[in-house]
Amino acid sequence: MRRWKLTVAYDGTHFHGWQRQEVPGGEPLRTVQGVLESTIRSTFSIDVRVVGASRTDSGVHARAQVAAFDCGIEIDGERLARAISARLPDDVAVIAAEPVHEGFDPIGDCVSKGYRYTFRDACPNAHRAGVFERLWVAATPHAVDPARMQAAAGLMVGTHDFAGLAHSIEDRATTVRTIHGCSVRRMPDGTIAIDVSGTGFLHNMVRILAGTLLDVGRGHREPGHVRTILASRDRSLAGPTMPAQGLCLEWILYPKTGRQA
Amino acid sequence: MRRWKLTVAYDGTHFHGWQRQEVPGGEPLRTVQGVLESTIRSTFSIDVRVVGASRTDSGVHARAQVAAFDCGIEIDGERLARAISARLPDDVAVIAAEPVHEGFDPIGDCVSKGYRYTFRDACPNAHRAGVFERLWVAATPHAVDPARMQAAAGLMVGTHDFAGLAHSIEDRATTVRTIHGCSVRRMPDGTIAIDVSGTGFLHNMVRILAGTLLDVGRGHREPGHVRTILASRDRSLAGPTMPAQGLCLEWILYPKTGRQA
Repeated sequence: MRRWKLTVAYDGTHFHGWQRQEVPGGEPLRTVQGVLESTIRSTFSIDVRVVGASRTDSGVHARAQVAAFDCGIEIDGERLARAISARLPDDVAVIAAEPVHEGFDPIGDCVSKGYRYTFRDACPNAHRAGVFERLWVAATPHAVDPARMQAAAGLMVGTHDFAGLAHSIEDRATTVRTIHGCSVRRMPDGTIAIDVSGTGFLHNMVRILAGTLLDVGRGHREPGHVRTILASRDRSLAGPTMPAQGLCLEWILYPKTGRQA
Repeated sequence: MRRWKLTVAYDGTHFHGWQRQEVPGGEPLRTVQGVLESTIRSTFSIDVRVVGASRTDSGVHARAQVAAFDCGIEIDGERLARAISARLPDDVAVIAAEPVHEGFDPIGDCVSKGYRYTFRDACPNAHRAGVFERLWVAATPHAVDPARMQAAAGLMVGTHDFAGLAHSIEDRATTVRTIHGCSVRRMPDGTIAIDVSGTGFLHNMVRILAGTLLDVGRGHREPGHVRTILASRDRSLAGPTMPAQGLCLEWILYPKTGRQA
């Protein structure tokens, strides 16, 4: 038996998020975990459980989600990735597979994660980006100033209680998280990209962080308002939860995952 | 009554092409023309026929298709484009509207058109591009040499009988067309882009031209083979018809369309 680390890319548009969801008396919802498990099962005739590092929500994308599963078949990583990908639907792909030590835990071993939130501002038709980017880019009718957003983003960095920037925190032991970096840039194509990295994120945290920075960028709030949100732990002071399609899990960092092979 | 020239962008993935298609005893197929006509109808409570410059096939995209329709409502172009776009589904948008002289004919007045065909070569999983580009980029397992493709592309330029590079030509008065330019480049993202412009194109001509250049690029044919295809008028000597998703109508040029406003 060997544990494998998979790097998985997906277009989240037509997935009900990462995590397998059973529907009592019905077909399970289409999720990335569910599709991966059933594809691996049918490819190798084995029963598997695929554990993902990040439970991305419905509609959220990933360039490099990380997942682990155990498998007794002797095969090299490149062939494994190709064999699974060839049978996956075209909106998800295994872009790498490497053997890892048997205790590798994609959630617990994670050192940091990076997300990007992308939106287009000053969209004449209120809430839609262009037809060729609408699946990955959110839109706002307001024009924003990235420099104002960056001033607010800098205040997110550090170890804070992010209760005011999260959804459904009741089941969390702690709402303290550490943000390593948060930068805002206007990209060559005119979209605004918010890159945020940290040890972990609360539910909807990146999308609420993006909505809060947008409020600042359009002049609705001052950058220093971020301090008030963090101190108050009050969700109602933060900006809106931005739509899922603008969010992408970009990378997940692990300490050197000593190969077993 | 005023004639309007619309510039229309669409993601062709979920359209059965441009042209309205009635289904006897059933719902009409979802086409760009059909969706535009029904949206304009419901927006302004008028009955319209929208005439497109190019009858793009099922799955083919457009950044700037041109269409014309007549309308008695007094409105300025920017408001007209916004009013229609706001009610269109999110995979099609009117990006500009301008009043034109009453004899403007989007098909007959066209001076030239530009298409781009985009594919990714050396794809490990045979026939699929990445999950974030699969809707607009075709894929091939073969590695190609763009310089070889360019040598073949240069032989396409000029006025030739393109019968060997077209599908279902029986109903055409002539299969002679003029290609103004045909260039092949590897783009910064690693994809191969074939840009071709000309007075007009036969059915499937750009997709067969792309398949023929791909055959040359992978070393399966010599660049000079293009001369043989053109001279023979024999479709069986040309390359495969490349898939629709790689094709995009980029622009259509008209002589100065004297404004009426």
